[in-house]
Amino acid sequence: MSSNQAITQQVNTILEALRYQGITTAVLAPGSRSTPVALLLAQLEHQGRLDLYVDVDERSAGFFALGIVKQTKRPVLLVCTSGTAAANFYPAVCEAKSAHLPLVILTTDRPPELTNIGAPQALDQIHFYGQQVKHFCELPLASASSAELEYLNFNVQRMVVAAKTRPCGPVHFNLPLRKPLLPQLSPAKAIYPKIEFETAALKLAAFDLKQLQQTFANKRGLIIAGPEMQLPQHAALLKWARASAWPILADSLSQLRGNASENVITGYELFMGIPEVREKLKPEVIIRSGGTLVSAQLAAWLKELQIPLYYLDPDQEVNDHTKTATHVLPVEEANFFAALSPVTTPADWLHKWAGVQNKTLKSLTAYDFTQKFCEPAIAVALAQQLPARANLFVSNSMPIRDIERFFLTAREKIKIACNRGANGIDGIISSALGMSAQVQDKQTANFLLIGDLAFFHDMNGLMMAVRYQLQLRIIVVNNNGGGIFSFLPQAQVADFEELFGTAQNLEIAKVAALYHATYQKIESFTALQQVLATPVHSLEIIEVVTKRSENVAQHQQLQQAVKDGILRMLINENQA
Amino acid sequence: MSSNQAITQQVNTILEALRYQGITTAVLAPGSRSTPVALLLAQLEHQGRLDLYVDVDERSAGFFALGIVKQTKRPVLLVCTSGTAAANFYPAVCEAKSAHLPLVILTTDRPPELTNIGAPQALDQIHFYGQQVKHFCELPLASASSAELEYLNFNVQRMVVAAKTRPCGPVHFNLPLRKPLLPQLSPAKAIYPKIEFETAALKLAAFDLKQLQQTFANKRGLIIAGPEMQLPQHAALLKWARASAWPILADSLSQLRGNASENVITGYELFMGIPEVREKLKPEVIIRSGGTLVSAQLAAWLKELQIPLYYLDPDQEVNDHTKTATHVLPVEEANFFAALSPVTTPADWLHKWAGVQNKTLKSLTAYDFTQKFCEPAIAVALAQQLPARANLFVSNSMPIRDIERFFLTAREKIKIACNRGANGIDGIISSALGMSAQVQDKQTANFLLIGDLAFFHDMNGLMMAVRYQLQLRIIVVNNNGGGIFSFLPQAQVADFEELFGTAQNLEIAKVAALYHATYQKIESFTALQQVLATPVHSLEIIEVVTKRSENVAQHQQLQQAVKDGILRMLINENQA
Repeated sequence: MSSNQAITQQVNTILEALRYQGITTAVLAPGSRSTPVALLLAQLEHQGRLDLYVDVDERSAGFFALGIVKQTKRPVLLVCTSGTAAANFYPAVCEAKSAHLPLVILTTDRPPELTNIGAPQALDQIHFYGQQVKHFCELPLASASSAELEYLNFNVQRMVVAAKTRPCGPVHFNLPLRKPLLPQLSPAKAIYPKIEFETAALKLAAFDLKQLQQTFANKRGLIIAGPEMQLPQHAALLKWARASAWPILADSLSQLRGNASENVITGYELFMGIPEVREKLKPEVIIRSGGTLVSAQLAAWLKELQIPLYYLDPDQEVNDHTKTATHVLPVEEANFFAALSPVTTPADWLHKWAGVQNKTLKSLTAYDFTQKFCEPAIAVALAQQLPARANLFVSNSMPIRDIERFFLTAREKIKIACNRGANGIDGIISSALGMSAQVQDKQTANFLLIGDLAFFHDMNGLMMAVRYQLQLRIIVVNNNGGGIFSFLPQAQVADFEELFGTAQNLEIAKVAALYHATYQKIESFTALQQVLATPVHSLEIIEVVTKRSENVAQHQQLQQAVKDGILRMLINENQA
Repeated sequence: MSSNQAITQQVNTILEALRYQGITTAVLAPGSRSTPVALLLAQLEHQGRLDLYVDVDERSAGFFALGIVKQTKRPVLLVCTSGTAAANFYPAVCEAKSAHLPLVILTTDRPPELTNIGAPQALDQIHFYGQQVKHFCELPLASASSAELEYLNFNVQRMVVAAKTRPCGPVHFNLPLRKPLLPQLSPAKAIYPKIEFETAALKLAAFDLKQLQQTFANKRGLIIAGPEMQLPQHAALLKWARASAWPILADSLSQLRGNASENVITGYELFMGIPEVREKLKPEVIIRSGGTLVSAQLAAWLKELQIPLYYLDPDQEVNDHTKTATHVLPVEEANFFAALSPVTTPADWLHKWAGVQNKTLKSLTAYDFTQKFCEPAIAVALAQQLPARANLFVSNSMPIRDIERFFLTAREKIKIACNRGANGIDGIISSALGMSAQVQDKQTANFLLIGDLAFFHDMNGLMMAVRYQLQLRIIVVNNNGGGIFSFLPQAQVADFEELFGTAQNLEIAKVAALYHATYQKIESFTALQQVLATPVHSLEIIEVVTKRSENVAQHQQLQQAVKDGILRMLINENQA
């Protein structure tokens, strides 16, 4: 058997095994060593059996792949050549690990005789991502041995399954390849079988559920729904909360803010700082679901409460940095709430929450953003104006905080996503474009809210929008530097601008021109509302110019206005 | 003692220890967790005791730091906040490891109580760069203990020394920091002493030298001088080769091509493919110095020769992927040649080499690049036109191959640099700018030769030129995609453009406008010569448009012309 027959069989077996376990999309960063993988991936694409994206910048490619995972909820294959190409994947690998995303990385490598001997473009790629992957596997050189092929078929499948078994996470294959690298391009037939992996569900025993129901009965109970991309919906949670009249504090990434239920409470960042409200809304028991909360204030409140907190932990990692969980329930949210019978709850409990929530919404709506245009106004305008079906990708740092605080209600089919594993400001554009690339429904519009520093960090990511004619409306909040630092003690130091503010003076219009994006500069609330009301067609960059120097005061003014409204409401209630 | 006093003492002790061992430059990627390090570095800068650069994109920052190392030949400190920021350093860390560059990485981290518990922006940063650093050290939390400070002072110094001891390489400190993060800004006094590390030299015993001299006597001997950035000069090597009449095959990164000695042979890539020349110039013994050769053809010739090869190995790693070393000498080049007495050599040996070399140079000079403008012409024009003092940074992939093949003689004060550890096309602009930033001599002009893909990969790096008003003339060879792949078997496949060519259609003029660079488009040899003759003042981007589709044939034509010239010379010699 010729060596390229052996490579062809080997790579085909790997790719078929990947496909068996649900990989239908691959992102390739081009290079020479990865040639057989690239060509056989392209062949699968021609056969309509796989979507293949090619991204020259590996850092962007990694985050583009993460965006696809977020949209499709399926594992995605990420491929590169040997050398520093693989190192450029590292930020996305770390994000995948922290955010529990099933990323399957296949780095190609020089053959053994060119490693550890000073050959060019050869790094030690074994365990290259260290603790940041769930599993690593050094694949063997192609040998045309049937034992090897059988092993590959089995092992590649189990690694993909590991990636998508909770806690989900990245897995890494390193594949050494020896020249000649050109494979035989003929329709491959899968020789080795698919392994049928059934998925089991974590469920509590009926006895435990009965006890829990008794614990929750007649209590001022509260559900906190944290970030959640795994679940298609929270139907069971909502149903149970409605039947039990429990409020749900819905994190901006919980995918619950688009739900019109009166149980869904979102204004907590604006009202939990008021001592009278905290007193009035003090719960007796909490059920918490989903990942690490966006709201630091909510987390702080949990610590202060010191009450029983039931923490749903389907990942079985007890990743609760608030350390407030008193009871850990290793169970999926949907299973738990479907199995739990509703409880009776003090009559006015939900009503109290809804009252404060409604007053918060009214105060926010009444605020005169037309006169007082500011960064929070962008989140408010998005909540009001996003089309019925939309993906909203939100950058870290200030954007996600503003969304958490001010994007309080949305329409039903709006999905909010964020790279909330390691909270980096890298790769944001690529992640948003990766999501956009795999949106099947043509009615869905894609939005990205991002600050100028994060926009700068991943400008290269825009190339994928050009290459694949992707649709994305990017709202760049341009306050010329690192806005979040003005909220920290660092704001007072002499070297603030040099070390933290870091104005880049980036001309967004020129970036838009470079990537053939339509461009508009917005400097008022009305103009922003108008532009948001128009349909999204292609790559669009909307620059919203704000002032970093006024941002902290503007946030405080708005929060004070909401607070004043709530306090007046409480006084009226007491007088009534 | 307050906690910020403790942090201040701790960080000051670390920074003083770094400075004790020669760190005078730091590159900081901004963030919040790194605040005490950032502010105390800025304080050192204000005191004129350190150069501090701030770079928002950590990937670029890493390569910018490598550029500084290349220019200053001193270790450089690279600092970032916690999370994926550190992951963005990975490509530069890998390059530093492969290229033996003393990079000192200080990642800051969240304190223990926020690790391994699902807290935001917290990765496992312990051994974060795995095998890609020489040493890793997890630093303790500030405790104000004098035992701890004493340890920090000692340990930080020994780690920096390790980074700059051959084989040089990156070292990584991870520093957990607990809030409050603001240090006390008052002039720090170094409390703990500098450790005096003397450097020892590797030298062969006199007896061995005598034996070697006898071995080399009366032989057709050859020196191969590979890439070398460590040495300030090759004075001893040159002196010995001149006295012994040995030819020196000088790699384009050996820093020897600027030397006018007749011993320096550079045209080997153009003439070694001619069987008659190989026969005529067959050596009996070789001394090889420096790193992995740029020329694959030269490496292949070494394998073919099967003669005694003495390999100078001051790094004591025997990184010889050609596996042609028959004798390994663990000694520094300068020490070796200074100690070795000259030898007698067959009279016509150097003359034969010089004849072929001269003919090669003449053929290249005679080639009509005005009519046949092509990518090799750029290397030829640079060799002819670079100013007397210049840094030429060369990108990987095609540029370094063209330089190796066609940049045959240079003026004396020209330094050629390349990221030739892992040979990546990432971070090239940043590396060139890092070198430029630390050029002390105002007479030195800075050049970068780069293809359009590598240019695209690190466009963000250009921001540092704007921020620090750096001087660099960038020659972008724009053949709209991956030119090197046309030279490989992949060029024949149907999906070539999609998977390998990867045209980006990047509008270089718009990139220049974005970064306020002066811009010129060049489409002829004459225009290129003219623009190279003008002085370099600021950030300049020269776009040289070439055709990928014609590139292979153009290389072949030129090589054929040189070959024909040499063959005619050989015929004339035989007839004479």
